[in-house]
Amino acid sequence: MNKTGEDLTALFASLNASLGDRFVTSQAVRDAHGRGEGLHDIMAPDGVAFPRSTEEVAQIVRLCADHKVPIIAFGVGTSLEGQIQALHGGISLDMSQMTQILATSAADLDCRVEAGVTREQLNAHIQSDGLFFPLDPGANATLGGMAATRASGTNAVRYGTMREVTLGLTVVTPQGEVIRTGGRARKSSAGYDLTRLYVGSEGTLGVITELQLRLFGIPEVIAAAVCQFEDLAGAIEAVTVILQMGIDMARIELLDELQMQASIAYSKLDGLREAPTLFMEFHGSPAAVDEQIAQVGEIVGQLGGGALQQAKVQEERNRLWTARHNGYWAARGLRPGCEAFATDACVPISNLAACITETKAEAAASGLICPIVGHVGDGNFHVLILFDPSDPAERQRADALAESIALRALHHGGTITGEHGIGLHKLGLMEAEHGEALKVMRAVKQALDPDGIMNPGKTIPAA
Amino acid sequence: MNKTGEDLTALFASLNASLGDRFVTSQAVRDAHGRGEGLHDIMAPDGVAFPRSTEEVAQIVRLCADHKVPIIAFGVGTSLEGQIQALHGGISLDMSQMTQILATSAADLDCRVEAGVTREQLNAHIQSDGLFFPLDPGANATLGGMAATRASGTNAVRYGTMREVTLGLTVVTPQGEVIRTGGRARKSSAGYDLTRLYVGSEGTLGVITELQLRLFGIPEVIAAAVCQFEDLAGAIEAVTVILQMGIDMARIELLDELQMQASIAYSKLDGLREAPTLFMEFHGSPAAVDEQIAQVGEIVGQLGGGALQQAKVQEERNRLWTARHNGYWAARGLRPGCEAFATDACVPISNLAACITETKAEAAASGLICPIVGHVGDGNFHVLILFDPSDPAERQRADALAESIALRALHHGGTITGEHGIGLHKLGLMEAEHGEALKVMRAVKQALDPDGIMNPGKTIPAA
Repeated sequence: MNKTGEDLTALFASLNASLGDRFVTSQAVRDAHGRGEGLHDIMAPDGVAFPRSTEEVAQIVRLCADHKVPIIAFGVGTSLEGQIQALHGGISLDMSQMTQILATSAADLDCRVEAGVTREQLNAHIQSDGLFFPLDPGANATLGGMAATRASGTNAVRYGTMREVTLGLTVVTPQGEVIRTGGRARKSSAGYDLTRLYVGSEGTLGVITELQLRLFGIPEVIAAAVCQFEDLAGAIEAVTVILQMGIDMARIELLDELQMQASIAYSKLDGLREAPTLFMEFHGSPAAVDEQIAQVGEIVGQLGGGALQQAKVQEERNRLWTARHNGYWAARGLRPGCEAFATDACVPISNLAACITETKAEAAASGLICPIVGHVGDGNFHVLILFDPSDPAERQRADALAESIALRALHHGGTITGEHGIGLHKLGLMEAEHGEALKVMRAVKQALDPDGIMNPGKTIPAA
Repeated sequence: MNKTGEDLTALFASLNASLGDRFVTSQAVRDAHGRGEGLHDIMAPDGVAFPRSTEEVAQIVRLCADHKVPIIAFGVGTSLEGQIQALHGGISLDMSQMTQILATSAADLDCRVEAGVTREQLNAHIQSDGLFFPLDPGANATLGGMAATRASGTNAVRYGTMREVTLGLTVVTPQGEVIRTGGRARKSSAGYDLTRLYVGSEGTLGVITELQLRLFGIPEVIAAAVCQFEDLAGAIEAVTVILQMGIDMARIELLDELQMQASIAYSKLDGLREAPTLFMEFHGSPAAVDEQIAQVGEIVGQLGGGALQQAKVQEERNRLWTARHNGYWAARGLRPGCEAFATDACVPISNLAACITETKAEAAASGLICPIVGHVGDGNFHVLILFDPSDPAERQRADALAESIALRALHHGGTITGEHGIGLHKLGLMEAEHGEALKVMRAVKQALDPDGIMNPGKTIPAA
C-alpha cells in the first residue's frame, strides 16, 4: 500500500517485468528522488524507474495510468520549489539514461536531444561545431527539467528563456500516448501552441522525453566587464538606459553591496568594493563588442558608475562568472551555520529600483541577512534569505518575508516567479497572480490529465 | 432562425437593448464581415456587434453563450485562410471601436493596447517616443487579429513573431468571464503559458480584448540593400551563412526571378534584373550597420551574388519595401484577369533550397504561373498561385498544387503555415502536421469552449 492507499503489487510486478533492474524501490534511491535543492522535506516516491526511450516512458505511464498511480519526471533534482516531491507517492521517472543528442544542425542552428541531456553535456558536444546553447540557470540541469520549469538564467536578456528556445517537444501524455509538438520550422501558425503549453507545466500535463532546441553560433568575441556604483538606484538606472538604447547585452547581473561583501570573501574578488555592482558580458564581432563597451562605459559614467573593469581573457571571465554562480554559497558564508533560500520576483524594469529598495527596507526590518543578486536585464532578482534552521520562529519570519517579496512583485506589475517555477512552494500565491485565469489553467489540467496522475499537487492549486 | 436553426429573436432584442445602433443586422454590414482577404465565399454572420470595452465584449459573449450562438471576433478582415467566415452564422464582434492605446512605457519597452488598434496606429503613436513595433505582415491589421493568427512578416527574423512579442492578454472566455494572462514581466515561470495558448488560437478559445506588447527603440541607423544572384540556390546559401554567422538581419527577403519580373514592371524597380534577389534591411548603430553590410557583402560575393546596392535614404528604402509589399498585386499583373492566392510553407533553412527547387519544378509542370516571395530568414516562403477564376479545372489544379506545397513543407521538417494560420482553408492538413497531438488540441478546445461557440469550425478539425 502506498500513501494514498493503492495496492502497488501488480504495478510493481509489471514494472519489474519490463524494466528489470531499471526499476528500483530501495529506500536510498527513493529518498534521493524525494526532493530537489529546495529546503523541503524528503517525500519519497514508491519506486524509481529509469527508462531508456520514449516508448519505455509511454509504457510506464500506461501502466501507472491503469493503476491511477502518480508519475513524477526527474532530471537531476536541481529544482528549487518542491517540484519533484512525491506528495502522493507514485513512480519517479528518472531520465538519466535518456541522454542521447539525436541531431544537431549548424545550418539550422538547432538540435534534438533526449530529455535527460544536461546543458553542459550539450555544450560540450556542439562546441567543436562552433555552436552553443546559451541558457544557464547555474545548475547543470537537464534540458527536459529546464523546459518543464521554463528556466532561464544569466543569458536570458539576450537569448530568451526556455519558452523562446524550445522549438518542439516529444511528450508522453497522461494516457501514455506519444505526441510531437512544434517542429523544426522557426515559426508556425498551425493551431494551438502546445510546445509552450508543456514548457513551464512542471510535469503536470505529461512527460517531456525529447526537445528540439535553438542553438547559437559561438560569438567571435566574448568580453566581460564589472562596474561598481555608489548606490543601487544608479546601477538599475544604468541597466534601464542600456536596454532602452538597444545595446544587445549578453548578460547584465546585479550584486548588491551585501552580496559583494560575501562574494569578495568567498571568491577572492580582489580589487572590488562592497558596493552595488553590475557583472556584464558582451557578445559579437570585435567592432560590435568594442562599440557596446564604449556605449556602456559612457552610460555608467553618467549614472555614477565607476570605470568599467574589463575581463578580457577567458580565465578572468570564468573567475567572474564562477563568482556569480557561487553567489548562494558565498552568501551562506555571511552567517555560518545558517541555511538560505532564494526568492524569485520579476518586475517591469521601471519598477525594479522601487521594488528592490522596498524589499531591502523590509529585509532590514526583519533582522534577517538578505543579500540580493539579480538578472536585472529581465527585471528578475533573487533575495537570498539567510536563517537559522534551529530557530522555527526565524524560519517563519523568513517565509513571511519571502511571501511579502512575491506579493510586492505583483504589486509592481510583475510575477511571483521569474524562473524557479511554482512546484509545491508557491501554490498558495497562484491565485494572487492569476485570479480568474487560474480557472482556465485548471480546466486545461482537468482536460489533459483527468485522473490527476501527472505530478499531482503541483503548479495548479486545487479549487 | 439562423443557419443552425436557432431562434435569434430574444438574443437580438438583448443585443439591441445593450448596444443600440452598435448592433447591426443589415445585409451590407453582415456581408462585409463574412470573409477576409482570401478567396473564400462570403459567409455572413447573423449580426455584427461593435463593442467599446472588454466589459461589453463579456456581456455580448454571455448573451451569446446563453443562446449557444457563435461568436467570431473581427479585426479589419485581412486574414487569408477563411478565419472569419461565419460558417455556422452567429455574431461578428467587430473590434474597430476598441482602439485605445492604454499605456506605453519607454523604460520598459512595452505597451498595452485594445485589440482593435492597428499596427500602423500604434507606430504613429509611439514614434515620437523613439519607439516602434516591428512586426509587419504587410496589411495594416489589428494587433488583436495579429495575435489571434500568430502573425509575423518581414521583420520576424530579428524581432520574432506575435508569439515572442506578446507579453500578456486580456481575454473574454466562452463563458463571458474576463481573464488576464501573462503580464508586464519579461519572463515568468508561474503556471501554464495561457498567453501563448491564446496567441494563434484564431478566436476559437476566447476573444482577445487587450494586449501587452513588447516595443523596441527605433534603431539609430536603418539601411536597406538589394543583392541579385545568378541562381536561387546561391541566394538561399547566402541567407544560411549570414544567419549562421549571427549577423542580426532586420529583414532578409527573397524574390524569385518571376516575382522580380512582376515587381520590376509594377513597381518600376529600375536597374534590377529578372533574377533571384534578396531585399535586406540592417538596424543598429552606424558602426554596427557598416560592419553588417561589409560582412554580408563579403558573403554574397563568395556565393555568386552581385554587389550590394544600398538604399541609404528613407525614400529609397520606402520604394524598396513598398515594392516588396506590393508583390501580390505585381504578381497578378503577370496574367491580367487572373486571381491569386498565397501558400505559406515554412521549413528549416537547410531544406529551403530543396523545398523551393522542388516546388518550382512542380509549379512549372502544373502550367500555372507561380512567382515566389519569401521571408527566407525564417525559412518561410509564399508561392503566389495565379489562376483563371472562370476555369474551375484550373482552380482545382491551383488548389492541388497548394496542398502539395504544404505537404512538401512537412516532408522537409516544416509546417503547413508559417504565418497565415489555419482558419477554414487548412483544416484538412492539420492531421498531417500534428498527428496524435491534434487530440490534445481537441481536448483543450472542448475543455475551454464546451458548447463550441467560439469561431466554430475553425483551426481544429472535428474528430
